[in-house]
Amino acid sequence: MEDSSVGIVETQYADLFSEENPLTLDCGRQLKSVRVAYETYGQLTQEKDNVILICHALSGDAHVAGYHSAEDKKPGWWDNMVGPGKGIDTNKYFVICSNVLGGCKGTTGPASINPETGRPWGLDFPVVTIADMVKVQKALLDYLGIEKLLAVVGGSMGGMQVLEWAVKFPDIISTALPIATTARLSAQAIAFNAVGRNAILVDPDFNNGQYYDKKVPAHGLAIARMIGHITYLSEQSMHKKFGRSLRNSDNYRYDFQSEFSVETYLDHQGQRFVERFDPNSYLYISKAMDYFDLAANFGSLEQAFAETKSRFLIASFTSDWLFTPEQSQQMVQALLSVDKDVTYCNIESPYGHDAFLLEPEVLGDLISGFIDAYYRKIRTGKTILPISKLDEENQHMSRNRYEYPVIEKLIKPKSKVLDLGCGRGELLQLLAEKADIEGRGIEIVQERALECVRRGVTVIQHDIDEGLPDFPDNSFDYAILSQTLPEVHQPRVVLDEMLRIAKVAIVTFPNFAYWRARIQLAWQGRAPITHQLPSAWYHTERIRFLSLKDFEIFCRKLNAEIITKVALDDKGKPVCCFDNLLAEQAVYVITKKSNPGR
Amino acid sequence: MEDSSVGIVETQYADLFSEENPLTLDCGRQLKSVRVAYETYGQLTQEKDNVILICHALSGDAHVAGYHSAEDKKPGWWDNMVGPGKGIDTNKYFVICSNVLGGCKGTTGPASINPETGRPWGLDFPVVTIADMVKVQKALLDYLGIEKLLAVVGGSMGGMQVLEWAVKFPDIISTALPIATTARLSAQAIAFNAVGRNAILVDPDFNNGQYYDKKVPAHGLAIARMIGHITYLSEQSMHKKFGRSLRNSDNYRYDFQSEFSVETYLDHQGQRFVERFDPNSYLYISKAMDYFDLAANFGSLEQAFAETKSRFLIASFTSDWLFTPEQSQQMVQALLSVDKDVTYCNIESPYGHDAFLLEPEVLGDLISGFIDAYYRKIRTGKTILPISKLDEENQHMSRNRYEYPVIEKLIKPKSKVLDLGCGRGELLQLLAEKADIEGRGIEIVQERALECVRRGVTVIQHDIDEGLPDFPDNSFDYAILSQTLPEVHQPRVVLDEMLRIAKVAIVTFPNFAYWRARIQLAWQGRAPITHQLPSAWYHTERIRFLSLKDFEIFCRKLNAEIITKVALDDKGKPVCCFDNLLAEQAVYVITKKSNPGR
Repeated sequence: MEDSSVGIVETQYADLFSEENPLTLDCGRQLKSVRVAYETYGQLTQEKDNVILICHALSGDAHVAGYHSAEDKKPGWWDNMVGPGKGIDTNKYFVICSNVLGGCKGTTGPASINPETGRPWGLDFPVVTIADMVKVQKALLDYLGIEKLLAVVGGSMGGMQVLEWAVKFPDIISTALPIATTARLSAQAIAFNAVGRNAILVDPDFNNGQYYDKKVPAHGLAIARMIGHITYLSEQSMHKKFGRSLRNSDNYRYDFQSEFSVETYLDHQGQRFVERFDPNSYLYISKAMDYFDLAANFGSLEQAFAETKSRFLIASFTSDWLFTPEQSQQMVQALLSVDKDVTYCNIESPYGHDAFLLEPEVLGDLISGFIDAYYRKIRTGKTILPISKLDEENQHMSRNRYEYPVIEKLIKPKSKVLDLGCGRGELLQLLAEKADIEGRGIEIVQERALECVRRGVTVIQHDIDEGLPDFPDNSFDYAILSQTLPEVHQPRVVLDEMLRIAKVAIVTFPNFAYWRARIQLAWQGRAPITHQLPSAWYHTERIRFLSLKDFEIFCRKLNAEIITKVALDDKGKPVCCFDNLLAEQAVYVITKKSNPGR
Repeated sequence: MEDSSVGIVETQYADLFSEENPLTLDCGRQLKSVRVAYETYGQLTQEKDNVILICHALSGDAHVAGYHSAEDKKPGWWDNMVGPGKGIDTNKYFVICSNVLGGCKGTTGPASINPETGRPWGLDFPVVTIADMVKVQKALLDYLGIEKLLAVVGGSMGGMQVLEWAVKFPDIISTALPIATTARLSAQAIAFNAVGRNAILVDPDFNNGQYYDKKVPAHGLAIARMIGHITYLSEQSMHKKFGRSLRNSDNYRYDFQSEFSVETYLDHQGQRFVERFDPNSYLYISKAMDYFDLAANFGSLEQAFAETKSRFLIASFTSDWLFTPEQSQQMVQALLSVDKDVTYCNIESPYGHDAFLLEPEVLGDLISGFIDAYYRKIRTGKTILPISKLDEENQHMSRNRYEYPVIEKLIKPKSKVLDLGCGRGELLQLLAEKADIEGRGIEIVQERALECVRRGVTVIQHDIDEGLPDFPDNSFDYAILSQTLPEVHQPRVVLDEMLRIAKVAIVTFPNFAYWRARIQLAWQGRAPITHQLPSAWYHTERIRFLSLKDFEIFCRKLNAEIITKVALDDKGKPVCCFDNLLAEQAVYVITKKSNPGR
């Protein structure tokens, strides 16, 4: 067993609820006893401040990591993420996971004995919801004497439980990490679930759910699993894994047996699932997913999130077409619009929905960086890493940004700052250290956003050319657009938005009317190349060229007032006169005029 | 019955093949008699040169358009496309469609009587392929005395038949229109088909295919249809149509009956399909789709297309995730790489795969424009419409393009010309009329590409920023990039490709070092705005600024020789001296240097 494994672990059981204290379900019915199967890894601190709750997906269980015996060949379902030194580090944190209500892996569900009849519940088991599952998890924590959760983490249906936790128990959880999930299933996802359930229900062996002493409805469950499995993979990954290859021959069989590799793979997945899963649990759990609609009781997603207090890390995967990036982005938008602290990353992956189980490197970095930052805050008061820990290379990069010290001087301490195109978070880290600001960044490049998370900087991975996220009016003291204006496709939209969401906007850009540029065009007849405009016309990613004068005229169109202008020469020193001629770059502080008049 | 209907039509039957002349199938078995159900609309010309064959998809049949009786409420499956004045105009063309081999709508299939046993074939019916279906269609044409097809048109599985026609019978078909189809199913599509077949095969009523005098395996077929139906819609259209709405209540039922609208819709689709389709035919036809692989017998798609002689119109739909635009684009690439005449359009639509049945306007314009052009060529010798028919507005647009007459003079008659960013095809139409060139256009905007097709100009809808299609080396005499260079993201890649695929490249662009532009930057310190550079810095779509001098230096990097340069002033007159100062735009003719030396 490798060092990064939690080793041999044991499933434990807790008997919760009672005649006097029953579990009241969303459907109105009650359960007077619920047995919960759970596992824990790592050590609980004396302060009990290091607890991470993991929530599992449709076919998961309490066995997240490690092995059940020395002979056990198959580790827990998220063993690549949970263990000593892994994304969820059991050297630092105390991890709990329990099988969901309605499941078939040790927690009470339709296969359990109905105490009133002495026979398995079958379809007499009450229909449960995601909220019901979370109620049972909360009861388990009470049983374990745990009052606070450092983090609740889960992918897919596990992510739904995370969302429910954040909304239902805002004072208990510090950080919420809903991964590859949604606040409600799409019509398409409901449709796939419905067809899967239909296959189970019409299986003649189903026997209205009372098959426990007979033949299980294996065909129906296998079909449901096959449909599900297709939706968990991307076409890209299926193409790579199977293409059109045949399983045992170079030639077609010309009959109706499975022959394409993808067919035999699905057959195999269907068969394996039948061996380990109860068809009734499939009905109950998939129905709970269909029913989940975080916004339903609140009127909107924004209102659902309004009373949450945790920080959020939302992660989606680019090729996930079941729980799409757009669905995660809707949650991010809703959280931002009610001014919550949310970090978002859309992880580049070919693996479809299954990526949350198959991309431990990037997702692990993200999760550990995010949780570590909050744990650092609990322990030291500082979320963001001190600058001294920055590597040399990044320090070098910062030295080339003459405008950083200028911006630093312009920003008031303890203010709230949004940095558009924040890169690796250097500026926000600098401002946090020097001015104790509360920062948020927006960055399009995944690797840079990841570096922000590692530093403890809250970041949204987003393309500002698609418009800014829906922040509330005046929710920031400063919105910064540093050297990014020349790359922006819709400058007017971005600047208008900056002036709406922040009291003042700080904009820096290279001056196209710098004297060297003028000379090159006027005397040499060539598109200018300067220190701040370094690329040839056919290379550059810069698509806008503007001078100080252009920007000032543009500000009039925006109905913006220029509060401060700092024009810098090629050494980063302020220019005192003829700035449109002598400045190589400029830093502007602008604000919306109080009387718009347009 | 409206005027645009073909009216009341009748399905006809032909008995084909015999003991002496059997149909030999791809699987090696033979059928000694095949009955084919077919319908025809419109009038056959005396020259028999106006025949359009339509091929139907999985659940289609011979009844394409019109009604079977005065009481008939449901017209044929493509009635919105086929009829007097419609996309496939029965006033002009003679249309034939037949039910496929293996089907259940009148053509011989598994429900037909096996003459050797006197009982329905069931699973004893031989497994058929798309090629077998096409062999039967060819036999039907022979029976009808038709030797030439003006066009073969089909969507989805119908498109597979079109591809098979083009490859197998290159001398018979003049134009091929494979719509929303693929040269082979993806692993994902095979997977969905496999699960659907599985549901039929494990249905206890299936009885190894001999259910004709018993209960049909309705549950299995319904599940197969439900799965299929989900794949025919887009998530976008499902969201719009159903969202998460409940069918008969505002509240959840908390049981396992269908309650979401999307569930009851799928139930309904499943039930309706069971009433009209034979489960065995579903097995045979879906298997034929899985087996179809146009490239398999040739080694590659390119080689499969190498001997085709027809013009192609390939159309895909943006939201089709079953037969994806990428799959259509692979066919386009393969056709271009073997120098075939192919027009391609990726039609913007929210309707998923079903769009080929639901977007009659755009698709109809495309189909009619394309077929009309070839029919015009047969009748008049000219594919492209004469310019005199252009509307005033377009003539006006052309007058603003001073470079057009210059280009016209540079092009040798009867040469082969590629126009990158060809817009509405004005330049290619002009060159066709004045210099009788053979033109091809590439254009990103759908509406402009459609206008090209209406004019008879061959066009590929494509974004040249994603690289040029894979044309063979030196397959054109001229490649033109007129006024598009400033919008190109990777100028080097595009120019290199132009010089590879054409003997010479013609490039026109506005001169950034025009004296008015120089003055504006040098004296006014502002980003220039001129007649040819009309937009302010924050508006423009132009992202490259270059002078004549910049371009000439760039040509050295490209190892290109400048053959001709025509510099034009702001009235479109040639500039005789100081062209980098006095020219507002320029036309360059360049070619690859014979000795690259790099």
